[in-house]
Amino acid sequence: MTSVHPDFRGVVPPLVTPLNEDGSFDRDSYKRLIDKLIDAGCHGLFVLGSSGEVVFSTDARRKEIIEAAIEFNAGRVPVIVGCIDTETNRVIEHAKVAKELGADAIVVTAPFYALQGMEEVERHFRLIHEAVDLPLFAYDIPVCVHTKLPHSLLVKLGTEGVLAGVKDSSGDDVSFRFLVQDNERAGHPLTILTGHEVVVDGAYLSGADGCVPGLGNIDPEGYVRQWNAYQAGDWDTVKSEQDRLADIMRIVFAPTDLQGFGAGVGSFKTALMLQGVFNSNTMPAPVRTQSGDAVDKIAEILRANNVL
Amino acid sequence: MTSVHPDFRGVVPPLVTPLNEDGSFDRDSYKRLIDKLIDAGCHGLFVLGSSGEVVFSTDARRKEIIEAAIEFNAGRVPVIVGCIDTETNRVIEHAKVAKELGADAIVVTAPFYALQGMEEVERHFRLIHEAVDLPLFAYDIPVCVHTKLPHSLLVKLGTEGVLAGVKDSSGDDVSFRFLVQDNERAGHPLTILTGHEVVVDGAYLSGADGCVPGLGNIDPEGYVRQWNAYQAGDWDTVKSEQDRLADIMRIVFAPTDLQGFGAGVGSFKTALMLQGVFNSNTMPAPVRTQSGDAVDKIAEILRANNVL
Amino acid sequence: MTSVHPDFRGVVPPLVTPLNEDGSFDRDSYKRLIDKLIDAGCHGLFVLGSSGEVVFSTDARRKEIIEAAIEFNAGRVPVIVGCIDTETNRVIEHAKVAKELGADAIVVTAPFYALQGMEEVERHFRLIHEAVDLPLFAYDIPVCVHTKLPHSLLVKLGTEGVLAGVKDSSGDDVSFRFLVQDNERAGHPLTILTGHEVVVDGAYLSGADGCVPGLGNIDPEGYVRQWNAYQAGDWDTVKSEQDRLADIMRIVFAPTDLQGFGAGVGSFKTALMLQGVFNSNTMPAPVRTQSGDAVDKIAEILRANNVL
Amino acid sequence: MTSVHPDFRGVVPPLVTPLNEDGSFDRDSYKRLIDKLIDAGCHGLFVLGSSGEVVFSTDARRKEIIEAAIEFNAGRVPVIVGCIDTETNRVIEHAKVAKELGADAIVVTAPFYALQGMEEVERHFRLIHEAVDLPLFAYDIPVCVHTKLPHSLLVKLGTEGVLAGVKDSSGDDVSFRFLVQDNERAGHPLTILTGHEVVVDGAYLSGADGCVPGLGNIDPEGYVRQWNAYQAGDWDTVKSEQDRLADIMRIVFAPTDLQGFGAGVGSFKTALMLQGVFNSNTMPAPVRTQSGDAVDKIAEILRANNVL
Repeated sequence: MTSVHPDFRGVVPPLVTPLNEDGSFDRDSYKRLIDKLIDAGCHGLFVLGSSGEVVFSTDARRKEIIEAAIEFNAGRVPVIVGCIDTETNRVIEHAKVAKELGADAIVVTAPFYALQGMEEVERHFRLIHEAVDLPLFAYDIPVCVHTKLPHSLLVKLGTEGVLAGVKDSSGDDVSFRFLVQDNERAGHPLTILTGHEVVVDGAYLSGADGCVPGLGNIDPEGYVRQWNAYQAGDWDTVKSEQDRLADIMRIVFAPTDLQGFGAGVGSFKTALMLQGVFNSNTMPAPVRTQSGDAVDKIAEILRANNVL
Repeated sequence: MTSVHPDFRGVVPPLVTPLNEDGSFDRDSYKRLIDKLIDAGCHGLFVLGSSGEVVFSTDARRKEIIEAAIEFNAGRVPVIVGCIDTETNRVIEHAKVAKELGADAIVVTAPFYALQGMEEVERHFRLIHEAVDLPLFAYDIPVCVHTKLPHSLLVKLGTEGVLAGVKDSSGDDVSFRFLVQDNERAGHPLTILTGHEVVVDGAYLSGADGCVPGLGNIDPEGYVRQWNAYQAGDWDTVKSEQDRLADIMRIVFAPTDLQGFGAGVGSFKTALMLQGVFNSNTMPAPVRTQSGDAVDKIAEILRANNVL
Repeated sequence: MTSVHPDFRGVVPPLVTPLNEDGSFDRDSYKRLIDKLIDAGCHGLFVLGSSGEVVFSTDARRKEIIEAAIEFNAGRVPVIVGCIDTETNRVIEHAKVAKELGADAIVVTAPFYALQGMEEVERHFRLIHEAVDLPLFAYDIPVCVHTKLPHSLLVKLGTEGVLAGVKDSSGDDVSFRFLVQDNERAGHPLTILTGHEVVVDGAYLSGADGCVPGLGNIDPEGYVRQWNAYQAGDWDTVKSEQDRLADIMRIVFAPTDLQGFGAGVGSFKTALMLQGVFNSNTMPAPVRTQSGDAVDKIAEILRANNVL
Repeated sequence: MTSVHPDFRGVVPPLVTPLNEDGSFDRDSYKRLIDKLIDAGCHGLFVLGSSGEVVFSTDARRKEIIEAAIEFNAGRVPVIVGCIDTETNRVIEHAKVAKELGADAIVVTAPFYALQGMEEVERHFRLIHEAVDLPLFAYDIPVCVHTKLPHSLLVKLGTEGVLAGVKDSSGDDVSFRFLVQDNERAGHPLTILTGHEVVVDGAYLSGADGCVPGLGNIDPEGYVRQWNAYQAGDWDTVKSEQDRLADIMRIVFAPTDLQGFGAGVGSFKTALMLQGVFNSNTMPAPVRTQSGDAVDKIAEILRANNVL
């Protein structure tokens, strides 16, 4: 298994963004999170991903977050920055800022909101690649952008040097298998990372180059142990670590009166607060912050799995 | 039929945005378009709607467009500005800019990209209303944001003074009927505009307060005649104008190799170029600009309907 | 407005199917319903439509229902029979039974369950037309079969004599407008009926040949008065009847703990029971039968609109 | 890993149904297929699944197929029969026929076509279980029925003895992981089989009890070797067999002018014809039978993988 971009392989958690109770960005908590992740052996940081509340963040806030990530990382691991916005020109603006602030790579989705064809999607990635000289990851996340990136298009753009990698949150493990196979045959131009923290083991069996697990904010050690086992060919450990991590993931079912982002990322924030990493589990507007029973249930799950 | 916001009733076309061939904003063409619409008797201008390429426009571009609209309109009719972005805080930023530049009202969709529940959608509108003192229209466009706004929620927010109106592009004429009925019974707090240029007559039968027809860029006189007939209770004219306008709308089927925004708004731009209103039919990245057969077919349709 | 199949124009309610409390077919109630509809002036009967619980009915039950409809109708108005099933050969079986039992026309959806392309959909209608010599209506109901029938395909099949008509429950009023226009230009080969009982007025403005309103089971007189006004060009009455009917339609919101078929058709059955037409509002397995508050609320709505 | 229904574990291919060129059922080819599968070591036969063209088959045809399967199997392995139809009573009819003809278990989807809530889905399975005394598998196939079965509901119905197992074709590997975990904790009441032939290895890592691979019709030996490796804990072989099988699966991309069932099951039929198992690759109406380039390309892929 060789790769043109070996630097982005391994466990690359998408950082959850801590907020103070007044909604401002909490730099101290962010520093603690970054140190926690790197100390645990993570191989990179993915900043401003979907769970990093990129679409909730104004341009000024995005800049604050990137600056803090670059500063606190201090060159220890690669920093990949999500440049998520509706259409090409808006994405290019974010990408230029990310480059200026020191990002090592950028992550971009298909265009969204306006209806388009695959021809436009392809041109979108080409134009961004031409405009900004940084390794470009395609972020395949149809649940948010309502376009599935075909594996054949991804490998074509990888072979031509437009894309450096793929962050797959498509939920389509069949397509993922074909993507990895096609990429292998093309000489492995793409670094392929899975975003599905509950089935990273299956993605590794398929040949993934790494993972971007939201749950990695809570238990980075687990994902690092799993990665090391994967590298060593120890599939039993890959599986048993996954079973344990899947168990911790049940924190997202704790709040019964929230759904989507408020349940998922909300539970990650609550867990990080309980772990003493975040000062607060405050959510960005318009999402309600978790409280009461959900918090107790999350604490119980964390304790039962020895991550509290 | 009385309304708290009578100023926004009538024909309010969503302005298509002209670009120069290099992608820059073409102010001269925009001036011609605005004069054309107001001269035809339109009752308001909707700037930076979906067909006004709001999601393709950077913040600087959005500002350019709003400034030009305010300047060229010169106070003749109300100017409604689309503040379309993913989540609350980003929308509030756009809304504050719109207010500062002189907008008379703002239009806002449900949050998109991140998955949420209806509780968050409701809070989203409340927070924007609290943050920016301008009449607030809810933009119901599930095909783009993947959330349908329930008519009961809209009327509730209207009654409480959070919403001033609704721009309905939901494609759900059943729900539209219930919305209008409920609004009437609540004392008509909402000004309800339909965005479906092909069936404005049906929306008028349901009791709509006006329309926001993309095709109004091409034939504003038709929609104004239809509105006047509606006000006079002359349903036969309402229908016959609609039949004619539906015919012109077939320009969007002219390009056989484009879909979505490139076919729809692309054909509007081509028509405006053929009419001499726009200098160019250039589309924003990553959308391909129409050429060849599609242009000829559009010219033919316009000519057959006496709008060229 | 001329039509190859004038017999199917007008108000053609989709008959709700009465069940005894043990789930057996209640012939007596069915006779009362058929007499009620024909006495009110309805122009045809649509038997075994979606709201006639066709997909809940075994083949034996379907036969019972068709036989009863033919017998009780006694040749007074045309009887159109829904032959709804997954794929071509199964549909043809139902169609042959319908013909044998005396149906005047059959109604068929696109194939469903198996994934297919539009080529297969077209062949499906052609094969059914070849196999059974009865006027064939295409039933456009994407919410159930997850395929939208393109208006161009429908008019093509009408022109070739494959289709005699369309029952449109697509919820797409824009496409409906184009369908009616194209049909008109092709010489009106198709009889086009709308299934959207809440916006029949808009469909009439678009030029529909009639309606298939589920709510017509409850208030057929209203739809017949509306039809007569439409024929006389009296649009104000068309609209005012519709406003009243839309009000009655709110019975479907009465049950707060049911959704889909149980709320919609369930409320029709409850209303028919309250009106003394049906002995029971029993629903087919696995749907729960309405009771309690919902029944009271429905009675109240019926009374407020003078249909109880 | 223990199971209440050990008989249904392992490799249980969903049999493709051979047709003669006139569309009649080809018993001889079916016999060859069954012998091929059992000789290869398959542990069971799944008759009349989605790829066994159950929804294309009339009741008479379904009976023919079940009878042939029971006869040709001659008691060698368990025979599971798909009883796929729209709603409860229709399913129960099929289930009674299946039992009478000698099925060992039945497979049932959520109700489809009519819109419903989860309460009805649950009652559907309960009523079928009460009506027919055979082990009942829930078939989770949202792409066809547009309802996803929640893992919590499945485990609850397993624990209560309503369901004996699950055939998962949901494409949701995250939910699958939770299903397997919950089932394990509940004492393994359900036999859980995956239908995703391209990622069976990942499902085995998650703890699946077996697979129902359509591609198993073409290369049953591969899936049996993989199963044996799984039982032996030899994950490298589990993975390498899967990589090879995923390669063969690319036959479904061979026809470029077909989609869905015509491409997928069509390619399986073509492969079986090329292998000499089927006399013909004839498809059921309204699906077009493959020919020309697609056949050549499929032959090439089979040859390259030593299954021709």
